[in-house]
Amino acid sequence: MRATTIHGARDIRVEEVPEPRIKRPTDAIVKVAAGCICGSDLWPYRGENPIRPGATIGHECIGVVEEVGGEVSEVSVGDFVVVPFCHCDNTCAHCRHGAQSACVNLGVTTSGQAEYARVSQADGSLVATGGVPDDDLLASVLALTDVMPTGWHAAVSAGVAAGDTVVVVGDGAVGLCGVLAASVLGAERIVAMSRHTPRQELARAFGATHVVATRGEEGIAEVRELTDGVGADAVLECVGTGDAMTTAIGVARPGGGVGFVGVPHGVELPVRTLFEKNIGVRGGMAPVRRYLPELLALVQDRRIEPGRVFDLTLPLDEAPEGYRAMDERRAIKVMLRP
Amino acid sequence: MRATTIHGARDIRVEEVPEPRIKRPTDAIVKVAAGCICGSDLWPYRGENPIRPGATIGHECIGVVEEVGGEVSEVSVGDFVVVPFCHCDNTCAHCRHGAQSACVNLGVTTSGQAEYARVSQADGSLVATGGVPDDDLLASVLALTDVMPTGWHAAVSAGVAAGDTVVVVGDGAVGLCGVLAASVLGAERIVAMSRHTPRQELARAFGATHVVATRGEEGIAEVRELTDGVGADAVLECVGTGDAMTTAIGVARPGGGVGFVGVPHGVELPVRTLFEKNIGVRGGMAPVRRYLPELLALVQDRRIEPGRVFDLTLPLDEAPEGYRAMDERRAIKVMLRP
Repeated sequence: MRATTIHGARDIRVEEVPEPRIKRPTDAIVKVAAGCICGSDLWPYRGENPIRPGATIGHECIGVVEEVGGEVSEVSVGDFVVVPFCHCDNTCAHCRHGAQSACVNLGVTTSGQAEYARVSQADGSLVATGGVPDDDLLASVLALTDVMPTGWHAAVSAGVAAGDTVVVVGDGAVGLCGVLAASVLGAERIVAMSRHTPRQELARAFGATHVVATRGEEGIAEVRELTDGVGADAVLECVGTGDAMTTAIGVARPGGGVGFVGVPHGVELPVRTLFEKNIGVRGGMAPVRRYLPELLALVQDRRIEPGRVFDLTLPLDEAPEGYRAMDERRAIKVMLRP
Repeated sequence: MRATTIHGARDIRVEEVPEPRIKRPTDAIVKVAAGCICGSDLWPYRGENPIRPGATIGHECIGVVEEVGGEVSEVSVGDFVVVPFCHCDNTCAHCRHGAQSACVNLGVTTSGQAEYARVSQADGSLVATGGVPDDDLLASVLALTDVMPTGWHAAVSAGVAAGDTVVVVGDGAVGLCGVLAASVLGAERIVAMSRHTPRQELARAFGATHVVATRGEEGIAEVRELTDGVGADAVLECVGTGDAMTTAIGVARPGGGVGFVGVPHGVELPVRTLFEKNIGVRGGMAPVRRYLPELLALVQDRRIEPGRVFDLTLPLDEAPEGYRAMDERRAIKVMLRP
């Protein structure tokens, strides 16, 4: 099959690789209808994460079940499904506690930017959409594989509640979905920190009431002024850098919460500041499966349209251009169609 | 008046110092009926915090209002009051959010181990008990100035909920009050980590269902075994050292919460582990005033008896011996009577 592979920093290729096969009776193979590039794919793309040259890349896809293992009973060949980027049995103690991203049988999609993907723990992971999504819903269903549940997880982890003042640090697709999540969860004021006009516009469309274009100390000061010197009830850190975390903690009010979902790169948590301001910090890889039923219903009811984060769709063969576009911030998020 | 003062590491004296006076119209002066020594007083006692030689020490006391400033209207001369160790106006934005320990008019008791103490923000801080507490309640009322609300804050910060499995790291008075808090909040299993028999016994009396006497990796392994390899829903870190935090994070289940109330000394938060396990961390100085009405009612209804943490009562003049007894762990907590 054709699949996107990574050979080194900024060396993305689409080439023939062996099709994934059922390895265990709990597996399924999904024929990819649409995949996409994640902000976290840019870490290895930029050479900041180790890679295995020639490995397939891409952990987000939706499509049709092509084949199932002998123990799979909840989905059938022909079902159109959402594939959570992290696979879980949805029955272990961690899953039952809502921590599906720490499932004892955790797996991840490894060829989401390809023609086929293998899903471990198919029964626990896959959610059938009840038919091929309408064209106008496809992008939003694809967003449910990672980026929307991750933004949602940031909001849940930050403790967003109705009436809150929320700040979102990061205007990537996850941050934008965080704005949307905060809006759905009833936040009253949502401050999107973004310097890019198209992203600011999408943030406003998703429910941001304010945009702060400055960064660092200046950005913190601007948010503090917006909040009468008090700070935000909840802050969504959707980048993963030390600067982003510093900003997030800097704009939180005493007793507020920071939800962080950007994979930490060079982040240090200032325990003394957290102690002095009683700021809670919680986050991690999103337990996508936990949120999927609720979010899929919101998408299918057309109450949320997270698919608007896709501003570039390319044929799979043009995956390298997709990476370039995201790396250069010419695109917020790129959909790839096999 | 006679007051406990600190002159250097392990140099505690009781000597004559000037009586505190009303400085601002929001102040009150309290004649101390009982004060006590806090675990956090041991940091300067052991030379691990900077001190000003000759300064009074002690931030916990209860007593009778002796004098009030011109703007004090909520308490009157003669009222018996609980003095939260941190004073707050209870009206600013932070206080309204329940973060009274970050009040914009924050103050602290500085002569709790003395004959008189000054309380700033008397209206926002002091809670009258409705008369002199019965003899059998006095110790528990004294525990409400810091140690019990701090244990409670650890439990609240860790997110303890009914049915939870809770681990308490630290068997000082705060940890023991954390056990009591977890019990009141409905935890089903409460594991007290303690190596000291009298403290283990009090932990059990406060609601601990299990005691783990091992420490470090061994202690973590024992808790994991107790919890079928899952870990605890909520962990109360009531020490403030790096080792205690490592243990706390080590015994938390994925998606669990760590509440920390020990003033951090050499603590580093392992952000990557927190991310991978989706463990939340929240804590800080307890917003005592927030919890006081609820906790005072529990004490007065004789539903909780946090005063059992006091296992040594001394006349004020013997404060130096009180410090030695706590430092050498001969006493859990020492009450001082002027």
